Amino acid sequence: MRSLFALISSSASSGHHLFSLLGSRCSLTLPAHQAFRRRLVLMDASEQILRQAFAEKQSAVEAQGHAVRALKATGAAKPEIDAAIESLNGLKLEKASIERQLQAAIGGGDGSLNRETFRQAVVNTLERRLFYIPSFKIYRGVAGLYDYGPPGCAVKSNVLAFWRQHFVLEENMLEVDCPCVTPEVVLKASGHVDKFTDLMVKDEKTGTCYRADHLLKDFCNEKLQKDLSISPEKAAELRHVLAVLDDLSSEQLGAKIKEYGITAPDTKNPLSDPYPFNLMFQTSIGPSGLSPGYMRPETAQGIFVNFKDLYYYNGNKLPFAAAQIGQAFRNEISPRQGLLRVREFTLAEIEHFVDPENKSHPKFSEVANLEFLMFPREEQMSGHSAKRIPLGEAVSRGIVNNETLGYFIGRVYLFLTRLGIDKDRLRFRQHLANEMAHYAADCWDAEIECSYGWIECVGIADRSAYDLRAHSEKSGVALVAQEKFLEPREVEKLVINPVKKELGLAFKGNQRMVVEALEAMNEKEALEMKATLESKEESAFYVCTLGKNVTIKKNMVTISKEIKKEHQRVFTPSVIEPSFGIGRIIFCLFEHSFYTRPSKAGDEQLNVFRFPPLVAPIKCTVFPLVQQQQYEEVAKVISQSLTTAGISHKIDITGTSIGKRYARTDELGVPFAITVDSTSSVTIRERDSKDQVRVNVGEAASVVKEVTDGRQTWVDVWSTFPHHSAGPA
Amino acid sequence: MRSLFALISSSASSGHHLFSLLGSRCSLTLPAHQAFRRRLVLMDASEQILRQAFAEKQSAVEAQGHAVRALKATGAAKPEIDAAIESLNGLKLEKASIERQLQAAIGGGDGSLNRETFRQAVVNTLERRLFYIPSFKIYRGVAGLYDYGPPGCAVKSNVLAFWRQHFVLEENMLEVDCPCVTPEVVLKASGHVDKFTDLMVKDEKTGTCYRADHLLKDFCNEKLQKDLSISPEKAAELRHVLAVLDDLSSEQLGAKIKEYGITAPDTKNPLSDPYPFNLMFQTSIGPSGLSPGYMRPETAQGIFVNFKDLYYYNGNKLPFAAAQIGQAFRNEISPRQGLLRVREFTLAEIEHFVDPENKSHPKFSEVANLEFLMFPREEQMSGHSAKRIPLGEAVSRGIVNNETLGYFIGRVYLFLTRLGIDKDRLRFRQHLANEMAHYAADCWDAEIECSYGWIECVGIADRSAYDLRAHSEKSGVALVAQEKFLEPREVEKLVINPVKKELGLAFKGNQRMVVEALEAMNEKEALEMKATLESKEESAFYVCTLGKNVTIKKNMVTISKEIKKEHQRVFTPSVIEPSFGIGRIIFCLFEHSFYTRPSKAGDEQLNVFRFPPLVAPIKCTVFPLVQQQQYEEVAKVISQSLTTAGISHKIDITGTSIGKRYARTDELGVPFAITVDSTSSVTIRERDSKDQVRVNVGEAASVVKEVTDGRQTWVDVWSTFPHHSAGPA
Repeated sequence: MRSLFALISSSASSGHHLFSLLGSRCSLTLPAHQAFRRRLVLMDASEQILRQAFAEKQSAVEAQGHAVRALKATGAAKPEIDAAIESLNGLKLEKASIERQLQAAIGGGDGSLNRETFRQAVVNTLERRLFYIPSFKIYRGVAGLYDYGPPGCAVKSNVLAFWRQHFVLEENMLEVDCPCVTPEVVLKASGHVDKFTDLMVKDEKTGTCYRADHLLKDFCNEKLQKDLSISPEKAAELRHVLAVLDDLSSEQLGAKIKEYGITAPDTKNPLSDPYPFNLMFQTSIGPSGLSPGYMRPETAQGIFVNFKDLYYYNGNKLPFAAAQIGQAFRNEISPRQGLLRVREFTLAEIEHFVDPENKSHPKFSEVANLEFLMFPREEQMSGHSAKRIPLGEAVSRGIVNNETLGYFIGRVYLFLTRLGIDKDRLRFRQHLANEMAHYAADCWDAEIECSYGWIECVGIADRSAYDLRAHSEKSGVALVAQEKFLEPREVEKLVINPVKKELGLAFKGNQRMVVEALEAMNEKEALEMKATLESKEESAFYVCTLGKNVTIKKNMVTISKEIKKEHQRVFTPSVIEPSFGIGRIIFCLFEHSFYTRPSKAGDEQLNVFRFPPLVAPIKCTVFPLVQQQQYEEVAKVISQSLTTAGISHKIDITGTSIGKRYARTDELGVPFAITVDSTSSVTIRERDSKDQVRVNVGEAASVVKEVTDGRQTWVDVWSTFPHHSAGPA
Repeated sequence: MRSLFALISSSASSGHHLFSLLGSRCSLTLPAHQAFRRRLVLMDASEQILRQAFAEKQSAVEAQGHAVRALKATGAAKPEIDAAIESLNGLKLEKASIERQLQAAIGGGDGSLNRETFRQAVVNTLERRLFYIPSFKIYRGVAGLYDYGPPGCAVKSNVLAFWRQHFVLEENMLEVDCPCVTPEVVLKASGHVDKFTDLMVKDEKTGTCYRADHLLKDFCNEKLQKDLSISPEKAAELRHVLAVLDDLSSEQLGAKIKEYGITAPDTKNPLSDPYPFNLMFQTSIGPSGLSPGYMRPETAQGIFVNFKDLYYYNGNKLPFAAAQIGQAFRNEISPRQGLLRVREFTLAEIEHFVDPENKSHPKFSEVANLEFLMFPREEQMSGHSAKRIPLGEAVSRGIVNNETLGYFIGRVYLFLTRLGIDKDRLRFRQHLANEMAHYAADCWDAEIECSYGWIECVGIADRSAYDLRAHSEKSGVALVAQEKFLEPREVEKLVINPVKKELGLAFKGNQRMVVEALEAMNEKEALEMKATLESKEESAFYVCTLGKNVTIKKNMVTISKEIKKEHQRVFTPSVIEPSFGIGRIIFCLFEHSFYTRPSKAGDEQLNVFRFPPLVAPIKCTVFPLVQQQQYEEVAKVISQSLTTAGISHKIDITGTSIGKRYARTDELGVPFAITVDSTSSVTIRERDSKDQVRVNVGEAASVVKEVTDGRQTWVDVWSTFPHHSAGPA
């Protein structure tokens, strides 16, 4: 998971970067950030021409202005001066035209403005209706911490319940629940203590901290967008810096910051050199102050350290998957991008353990026919765009490394689209070679397009045996699996037998070190020594524990290959890890579900969230049409039936007009409204079509139950019950 | 919640204390710890007599031994010596008899042994079947941190889902989800930064830390139980120390530790003086190191700081309740008692906001007839035991402070018993006056009896306006509610008008302080001054900001009562807080659900958890009776139907005997097993009765669904379908 979130960092911000640079609504044809950076070279061509033309026209304008002034100063004839001025004005118009083209080419146009406006509309609605709240607001809040208010909390709880249903239950996964507080040794083994860092610079006077790469990126973007006078060469250089930003070392980053004279944004004070800041929240376990601990940056490690017990629980059989939902923490240097970049978030992670020699999946055929946007490595490198590829084909052609990885990609696609993520704004992007850890076999991100660009929301990685090996080494507990052979197998094995007597005579006190070094030779080294000994009777041999070469004679060691019988194979399983950033998925879901439509009177735009019933925070509202005791009684009876049926709902007996009450609940994404307008029957209204049917009081709860549980669609309901004309709403 | 967990500390350990002292199975008649301590005086009577008798008999034995030796030394006649020896043996027997009685009186007998054995059996099963796992086990773990393994995680998730259904959905509560990372200012306002501490001592050489009260308690208990030779006076003193342990100051605790010569348990090194250790995990928010933060010790504060928004969300109406489920953290000094005392735990908290002038509850009648064990303050003080009181009576008699508090007590009772908590081992204990914070109106704990004694699992407190006021003051944001009057009300108001001119002449530079002090008078003070001024023309008046009395003359202030019109009442709501320690409830549930029964062959005891379907980690298993492909196909079809129906289940196609497979799943508490013994029909077995019915393959999933969802009971199933004779299991 670390790799996912480390990368989200660059990708999410590159998403932003895309918008601000291109200025147009990112279409599905836009490639990911790395590939995009490569494409910059192509794009530079037109931009470079424009920058060149702009510089030339700028000079021409200046020269002509100079000429006009010279004519005036020398008292030239009026027609001559007028002609020169006309020419100057012509040049200025041409310059303005080039300026417009250049500005369009480098962004800042309407597209990004529209996106900002759209996002602001969504976020305003979300905050006003308490989908979320900046945490500790009465104390002026803390950057990067958000509360889910009642409807947000309900959406989150629905998303997690569906996740459990879709993954844990459906696949019989072993769910675990581990603490957030984690001792240092665990995160030392996983590499987080040493490597989970971002580079930071400090305002040398105030001590305010900034992410070094953010400052450099902001500087380059600002310069490219706002300063049209920079030379094409300078523009190319800045673009190059943006392209290699993620690969810059601490020293390179520091040098660029110095070279460009970048200062602290708020104070203009000088900045320190960049240095790594560990992104984990540190604490101390117990009272002694001697046991450092951290708030976990991911939930995965809790599963890895339990591998042995879980494998046993699964009857010592592979494959199996373990899963965990829980909080993870990341002490961001300076969080931006609202709900997408937070200091505490909910992760849902799966670790699917599998024999590295057999990554087939028995249920792959169930997803093989799915077809959706995939963005393989090659397409990104060649500047092409994501394309629809049937999943079965992607696996059979080797685009996706193996069936199990492919199976999870398919399951993630189904999960996200059933939640309500727009399938046209969802793509699976393969990591480029330089994005992946060296041990990873293959890695795909489910990216969802939102107003910040393409955001990584789920990472699906084949991490091979890395994590289990790391914990085996650090803990000394073997985290391995066995394959028992039905019949013993004959295996050719290298056998190295040091002759201790001879070695003792030759090396005396150093005998043990030489013996150990001989036994530790790998196959290649041993066979080379065997050949040398046979041809030359002796061989020079470096003993690292002695720090020198010794001479091994033929009688000191026998090296041979022997056939041995083995009854089992012991190996470290590979792990395939789908890892879900729940908060990011929910934010994208909010954006994909949001739309506005005119009020009946046409005088205002009303907000609607088109949540499917599965995720809607409240499934149904119950309204007495007017404030009348008998209607309220009916409403209470229906409310009781809905509670019994387990349908979350809200009863609204205020005297507000029915239209306003519908609008209020549309804004919460409530899919159905039951309006009590008689004591025998009621109407049920569907949110998006605004269609209404009439049903008996006694049936109302069960009709809503059927359609929220997905056993019926609204179309079924619509064709079963008498229609009701819309009336006041 | 703080008060709950601070107290659990003493109560849980007192629970332990009860067992070890009394040595018999704590019955329902046992009072809580404070009251118990008071009863010690009564109990001491018999113990004191026994200690006295033991000391006397001990002296008699020594004297007689001396006499025997003297007779032998002086060469007395054999019959004389024999008679003396017989007398000595008689005395020894009497001494042994008194010793047994004394030991029985002070504990260490069979009862606590049985409980230890029982607990060990439960815990062994729980750990072996991965209900829970000590966290980071391969790294030798961390005290006080546990993982829930697959079945434990499923139980927890079921308990939380039911909590949401029973409280949030049923009562239309506003659920929120706030971060664990909390800035200091919030916990400063709540009092946690200053007061959430335990007293700690350090081994002066190794630095190992201990809870000071634990060491003193252990010393006293050890002495009382193991050292029969201590004088009755000493025993009484030790008992007194145990009784007042919670009330000892740091200095008193330190003095006792010194006086008794208590040293570090492991090393016998001297100990430091006690000092307070804050139990919150501290961290730092952001990279500057200048923003201290803590991992929240409770979830409640997240709700309080959002009061204003939530009140608005609820249409500015009271009462309403907000709820939160989440992790809380407590950096215990040295955790003991396994799953009951942990450093990270899941809390589920409700904050019900209500008008302090109207704490009635519209749904109280629904719980008024419930009758269960209640343990009011008076019963504890008078040494009586908990008794069954109808809840309606408890409220009407004023035993429970108000209807809303009573309503939640009833709802908590229903919640716990529906989970499977034994109603005879559940009581509601009222806090004694000295247990409650000064601001609390009333407080009851749901205590569940387990092998550690009576454990506080839910606290239900009327905390009045304390929390909202604390945050209002600290943040400057008014967390208040308004009651708008239908018509303006005339209210008699005290009006104090200091005459500044006269006061200025009299007090010069001190004028402001005197004015403020006059304005700050309460009604009683003001009316007294008014009377004094009218009778004596002047009045002595203490100005605290000046630290002295001044003389107020009649012309310096006018005090009157005026009738004012008010359009609304602005007030700070009271909060009633039911707070659930989910892990503790689950541990008690494990113990209450566990039993053993002989295997069919009678050669071993088999473990069973009698979880109700609601909480069972897996609802159903599917077994092909023998390994045969056609049975396995049927099993897969049934498995698919169960998945579609949302029933968590497990399929077991190993060739193990069916009896063993039943035993395995009984130990996981799986309520139903479907055994495939033909391709047309299958058997369904119920766990506790071991009864089996025969149903068609197509019906199997829906029968299980009906009975796990609670729409049918096993009795219904048993009376509907043909019975199947037990066969091999």
